Formats: sequence, C-alpha cells, structure tokens
Amino acid sequence: MTTRVRRLYRNIDDGVDLVVFANSTEPHIDMSFMYATGVTDGLFEGCAAFCHPDGGVEIMTSALEEETATHANLPLHVFRSREEREKHLKGLLKGHRKIGLNHAEITHRAALELRKFAPKATFVDVSKAVIHTRLVKDEREIALLGKAARIASDALAAVMPDVGPGDVESEIAARLVYAMQEQGATGASFHTIVGSGPNSAEPHYTAGSRKLRDGDFVVIDFGAKYRLYCSDVTRTFVVGKATEKQQEIYDTVRRAQAAAMRMMRPGVRAKTVDTAARALIDATAYRGRFIHGLGHSVGLAVHDGGGLNQASDLVLRKNMVFTNEPGIYVPGFGGVRIEDDVLITSKGPRLLSTAPRDLIEL
Amino acid sequence: MTTRVRRLYRNIDDGVDLVVFANSTEPHIDMSFMYATGVTDGLFEGCAAFCHPDGGVEIMTSALEEETATHANLPLHVFRSREEREKHLKGLLKGHRKIGLNHAEITHRAALELRKFAPKATFVDVSKAVIHTRLVKDEREIALLGKAARIASDALAAVMPDVGPGDVESEIAARLVYAMQEQGATGASFHTIVGSGPNSAEPHYTAGSRKLRDGDFVVIDFGAKYRLYCSDVTRTFVVGKATEKQQEIYDTVRRAQAAAMRMMRPGVRAKTVDTAARALIDATAYRGRFIHGLGHSVGLAVHDGGGLNQASDLVLRKNMVFTNEPGIYVPGFGGVRIEDDVLITSKGPRLLSTAPRDLIEL
Repeated sequence: MTTRVRRLYRNIDDGVDLVVFANSTEPHIDMSFMYATGVTDGLFEGCAAFCHPDGGVEIMTSALEEETATHANLPLHVFRSREEREKHLKGLLKGHRKIGLNHAEITHRAALELRKFAPKATFVDVSKAVIHTRLVKDEREIALLGKAARIASDALAAVMPDVGPGDVESEIAARLVYAMQEQGATGASFHTIVGSGPNSAEPHYTAGSRKLRDGDFVVIDFGAKYRLYCSDVTRTFVVGKATEKQQEIYDTVRRAQAAAMRMMRPGVRAKTVDTAARALIDATAYRGRFIHGLGHSVGLAVHDGGGLNQASDLVLRKNMVFTNEPGIYVPGFGGVRIEDDVLITSKGPRLLSTAPRDLIEL
Repeated sequence: MTTRVRRLYRNIDDGVDLVVFANSTEPHIDMSFMYATGVTDGLFEGCAAFCHPDGGVEIMTSALEEETATHANLPLHVFRSREEREKHLKGLLKGHRKIGLNHAEITHRAALELRKFAPKATFVDVSKAVIHTRLVKDEREIALLGKAARIASDALAAVMPDVGPGDVESEIAARLVYAMQEQGATGASFHTIVGSGPNSAEPHYTAGSRKLRDGDFVVIDFGAKYRLYCSDVTRTFVVGKATEKQQEIYDTVRRAQAAAMRMMRPGVRAKTVDTAARALIDATAYRGRFIHGLGHSVGLAVHDGGGLNQASDLVLRKNMVFTNEPGIYVPGFGGVRIEDDVLITSKGPRLLSTAPRDLIEL
C-alpha cells in the first residue's frame, strides 16, 4: 500500500515523519488502518498501522489477527500481552518528532496513550489529509466498490419480483440482506431501510412491522459490504398502479438525479452538483421537499468523508465515488428517493449500481 | 434514565459535576449515549448526552434525529447547523468545573472540541465508571437481552434442520441472519461465523465458500441485535456421524462450560470462573487448546466491557450478563466451542440463550 501512504503524505504539508492509525475496541476501529495496510478482512482491535513518509507501513497486531495480517505482506510486530503491546508502541514511536493522528477516528484514550509513549514528539491532526486521500480511490478499491454495488443491484432484482401488498417491511429488509449475503457480501453495509406509505416520507426510518398496502410508495435504501467496501443504493416502488401525482413526484426526482449526474465530472464543485438537483426540485410544486444533501463519498465507510451538499467545499476529482440521491418527502403522504453509486472518471460519471431506474409497480 | 445516571455517579468518586457522552460519525458512536438516554433506536451522529449528578439527562440532537429523540422524554436541544450545535455545546457546558468523558468511546476530535468550549473546566476520564455501571443491567435491559438471546436460539432452531453436507458456510450464515431478522432482530450483532472442517479450528474465522463435508465439525457463532441490545451464541455440530474423538472433544467442552456455569454467581471472581473451565480442559489430552478467554459481558455492545479471563480483576455481581464460551481447537482437525449468554442472579446463573447443548449430527 506504498502508493496510498505516499499519496497521504502529499496531502500533509507540515513535516510529519510518522502517521499512526490506532484501533480501539469494536466499533471504534479506524478504517484508515485497513486502507493503509490493504487488509480487506479481520477486525484488528487494539492494533495499529505505522506509516512512513517513504510509503512504508508496519503493522502492530495482536496474535489473534496475526494470520489475517500476514496477507498484507508488511512487517508485523505481534503482541500477546499488554506489556508486549506497550513495548512495540514505544519502539515504533521512538525517534519520531512530529506524529500525525487521525483525530476523527481515534479514541481519546488511544491518542493520549500514544502521546504518553512519545512524550517528546509533537502530535498533529491529519484527519483532513486522510479524508482527501481516501476520497480518491485506486483500481483495487474501484473493483471492490463495483462488486459491492453489483451485489446490491442483483439482490434487489432477485427479491423484488416476489414483493407485493401484505408483505411486511422488516421481512423485505431481511430478504434483501439474505440475497446480498448469498451473492458474497459479508453483510449489509448499514441497517436496511424499507419505508412504506407514510414511513417513506422519513429519510431516517429503518423498517418496521407495517404491511405494504395498495397505493403506497416504498423507499428501499440498502447496501452491501464486500471485503470491507460498501455500496449504498435506493430505489422507490409503488404498490399497485401509480397515481398521476406519484408518477409526477417520481419523475421529478429522476430528472433531478439525471441533472446532478451530468455535473458529476472532474473539476466541478460538490456544491454545484447538489444545486443541479436541488434547483430542479425547487422549481416544481415540491420546492423545499428535498430535505437532505445530495450525496456522500462511499468507500471503506458508507459515509466516507466528503459530501455533495451546500456546505461542502469539495471539488470532484477522477476516481472519487459518490452517492447521487435526491429525494422528495411529503409528510403524511410519502416520499421518493433514487440513489446510485457513481464513479467520477475523466470521461464523466460511471454508474456502479446497475438496478433499473424506472418506476416499478409491485 | 435517572437511575442509570445516578448509579454512574456513584461509581465516580471525584467531584465530577457533568458527564458528557458525545457521538461522532458512525461507527464512532458511544453506546453510553444510548444507555444514559434510554433510546433504543436511531443513530445520533454528532449528538451528545449531558448527564447531571442528580440523574438528569439533557440531549443535544440533530434535527434529523429529533423525532426519535422525543421518545426519551428528556429535554432536547436541537441543532440544524454547525453554529447552532456550537451554541448548544457552549451553553450546556457553561458553569461546570469538572467534566467527565468516556475516553474509551469518544473520538480524540470530539474530546478536544469539548475542552475548547469549556476552557476553564477540568476534564477527567470516567470510562472505568461507565464500564462498571453498564456491567450491571437493569430490568429493561435484561428483558431486551433476553429477547436478543431468544431470537438467536429460535433462528438456529429454524435453520439447522435443513442444513447438511454440501451446504456452503456463507449460505448458512445468510440463512441465520435472515431468520433472526424475520423474528424481529434489526440485524446480526456481529458478522456470523460458520467455520467448517479445519476452519472450525480458527476462533476468528467468519464464513467462506467451503462446503460442509461428512465428518466436519461446524462451529456457528452468531447473535442478534434487538433494539440495540446484543446476543452472542455458539453451537458446534458434526456433519454425519460423530467419531469417538469428536464426541470426546465435544463432551470435554460441554463439561468445561458446565463447570464454569456453576461458578457464575455473585461474589465470584471472573478469573475463578475462567479457571473452572480452563482447569477442566487442561486436565485432559487437550491441554493448552483453549486459546482464548472464557467470556465477556454482553449488552449494548457485543463486548460490553468486562471479561471472564485470567487478566480480569472483575467480581461477578447480580444482574451482570456474560457469555460462557469455552472451546478446544485442534489445528488442521477442527474445533468445538459452546457459548451461552448467562444472567447472574442471586440464585445463581440463568441462561438467556435457550438452544439445546447436546451434540447434533447434521
């Protein structure tokens, strides 16, 4: 993972001579550890990656993860006790004068521990550099993200033909997760959302005991985790025949998504992409009903750092991967969201998620 | 959740006048936020709980989670922007002189942010007090943990009768997660382990493409998440007829589990419980083959703080919940682990997981 670490250092401009990604107990794991070491399996609690300016990476790992860690083909410092761990930490920190930490993903305890073991060093926050580095995916990451997106798309295709009125939201969610796992996902990348009827108007709803009824909008927002990489896809269905109003809302969201998609090119500002979708919706009767940002970076985390929204100062670059997910939410009536995972290429946007985008009646 | 917070303060002995549980971005969420507020749903990114010595709790929540937060029936401070969030933080910290943070679950960034907004206050680590408080479950928690354990047990009963030679590990894992979700789980509490044949000898294996073969041991380690509470159960099966050696290994582990179970009473040291199982295994031909600790506390996290192992200084108390999971691992041959979730009561141990413990031949 020499290239990844070298790229990281190019985003750090203040003489840092070591970057440490330190994991605590699950779920307090810094995915940058996985990024820097290239491992795509394992948990690595209490482990750390020591990244050098020349791109070299050393892994301090517990004996429990030693076997998994060997796949990284990097120097290993294995500990079997708290004492051994401390000895490794002190040794690996020794002689370094300016040490970078990822403040956004290291626990306060772990950061204080590292400071204690290197009392003479200066510590700096490199979290912004970490985000900027991880935003641009390499070939291997793009392959894994593509696979995660295909798994989600294929799972939807496998499950939806059997879904209809009377089916329970949580049951549909369970079937989707099952279908994704059957196709090689280690699991869902986040709790699956199946929101029907009025529930579809709540972007943060998950899935409950409500049964699908004729006339419902059904928003399904889900994703697969494949070798630690995530996908995040949303489709909206109608139970039975879509009304004119439903078709109109759906078409508006779809046109908003297409408008944003056209802007997903290197050099375009994230804010501009959001505006493309938002302006289209705000020019209709559904003005103000698009109540969240347009999208976010996807990678080792579902929300991988950068956002496509009005507060973002990000500029799109080649090999970034973002969700494009406009929505319209009408409280009490229902909502529509269409979400795809999009790779930015020099030729423009490339869809990683392949599920059809036409309104499907269940 | 007044009682929980009052109990927390009884475990803190140095004049702390405010405890703050602050969440960052997923997965960097402090489950103590859920504990202190009593919410059993939602994500609460960037939100925080302000806990007062009298047991009072105030929630600072994003507008996105406001609806979910209202279920807590606690004072809410809702923010819609970074500026509003900062204003709330400053206001809520104001006047406090000694503020406790959970160093084990707060990010370094969030801790530094709080320090910045309360420059005159002293900050102390209350993570040990948090663990001690969360170790002892209240009635509501015991009910949720019981439900999570029953869901796992019932899922196993639903899935295993159809499992046999030729079935793929990952497929069995998918069926189990599906069955748990069907019974009301929001998902798996961790990545399901289905290790067959030689894979069963690796405690940290997950599930792969290997097909079950006649003569295999199959270790299945899995759990449900139910309203944020976790279960963690392991059963080991044999494909086809068990050999004498397999039966012997299985019986040894089962006897070790029973020996530990007898020690799971208030007042007994965690180390002593581990020793009960370990001594039994080490007195057989499988000496040294029990290569991990006996168990761990289960709660809002799968590994909820305390451990039953040789390094632990914990003493068991009424209403703690631990896994009891001895194992024997013979590299290249296979392994056996039997794991149950056990509630400590004044009358002794009570099993929360109900799956049968006899060796089942598939």
